[in-house]
Amino acid sequence: MQSPKIRKITALLARLPGVGEKTAQRYVLHLLTADPAVSKDLGAELATLHEEVRPCEQCGNIADVVPNERVLCPVCKDNKRDARLLCIVGRVHDLLAVERTGAMRGRYFVLGKLLSPLEGIGPEDLPLPRLRKRIADESVTEIIVATPPSVDGEATALLLKRELASTGVSLTRIASGVPHGGDLEYADPITMGRALAGRQSL
Amino acid sequence: MQSPKIRKITALLARLPGVGEKTAQRYVLHLLTADPAVSKDLGAELATLHEEVRPCEQCGNIADVVPNERVLCPVCKDNKRDARLLCIVGRVHDLLAVERTGAMRGRYFVLGKLLSPLEGIGPEDLPLPRLRKRIADESVTEIIVATPPSVDGEATALLLKRELASTGVSLTRIASGVPHGGDLEYADPITMGRALAGRQSL
Repeated sequence: MQSPKIRKITALLARLPGVGEKTAQRYVLHLLTADPAVSKDLGAELATLHEEVRPCEQCGNIADVVPNERVLCPVCKDNKRDARLLCIVGRVHDLLAVERTGAMRGRYFVLGKLLSPLEGIGPEDLPLPRLRKRIADESVTEIIVATPPSVDGEATALLLKRELASTGVSLTRIASGVPHGGDLEYADPITMGRALAGRQSL
Repeated sequence: MQSPKIRKITALLARLPGVGEKTAQRYVLHLLTADPAVSKDLGAELATLHEEVRPCEQCGNIADVVPNERVLCPVCKDNKRDARLLCIVGRVHDLLAVERTGAMRGRYFVLGKLLSPLEGIGPEDLPLPRLRKRIADESVTEIIVATPPSVDGEATALLLKRELASTGVSLTRIASGVPHGGDLEYADPITMGRALAGRQSL
């Protein structure tokens, strides 16, 4: 009994991560009762999203497209960043999480995907040649591997260790353990085990 | 450090109900890595939402705009519906919930808001003249008040009872009690009290 327009827009919204049919419908009903300018603005912005925002040609972070210029993200454009320190992440989400700490003074390299035998993603699917070129071009001396502490993230970190051993670059991995404010009582055995194994001298 | 375009689109998405800054960012990153056609289609649909979908002139349900035609929703266009049976709801969400049961063979009237002294919404803010006209025009004989069993919903139901008493229309209120599959043990005292007060002969 519902309008085809509403059905179409609901189906499109339901493709967003974590959004089901019901949530999508709630969004549409909200937009219908809200100021029409919101739908209009949001619509216009979304329609041009992929034209105005592209992956940074150097690191894969999101970057604004500037006509007749190389597509570079704010981090890669920032001259104060140390090009010799490189942080390798799986996704842009992870880059933003690292960036939020304000502690990263180097640049990034977004792999785009992690090694995943279950999903059929092998070493040949990762941009390793581009990473090696980047390391050589920018005389990278230190790499921080910030892939997540999951099976796929660990496998990717091990692959990077093997693949980059010959470059002589210093390679470190972010720490995994009990999170800040976390209760030891509720830490799962793997996390607790990692916290023990990764202990540092006081 | 983020692009102005991304900031703008994130702020617009964060105006959706239940969506915060982080969820909005997750949506944007998802759209950026997904097929560009999704953003484009969704953008186009949203931009024209308020032009193509309007409240039904008769009941307030959402309706597709057809050029040179009165804006009527599928329920109001459906000749098989009994115009003499009217279900009064607060919002379109509630209309859709009633409609999902498949048990409503009449039509609807969406109030748009509920009586709410706390929010400063009084009887004069409800479309009572339009409701009275509808009852007279369509010779309505039975009304089901399906406002929610909340303070505002009950107040609205009582107001409707008082305002419509003179019309002589049969007026009923949807039942409130322990929900299907619900456990008596976990029912709050008010719900349990309503279930007792609204008991029916077996």
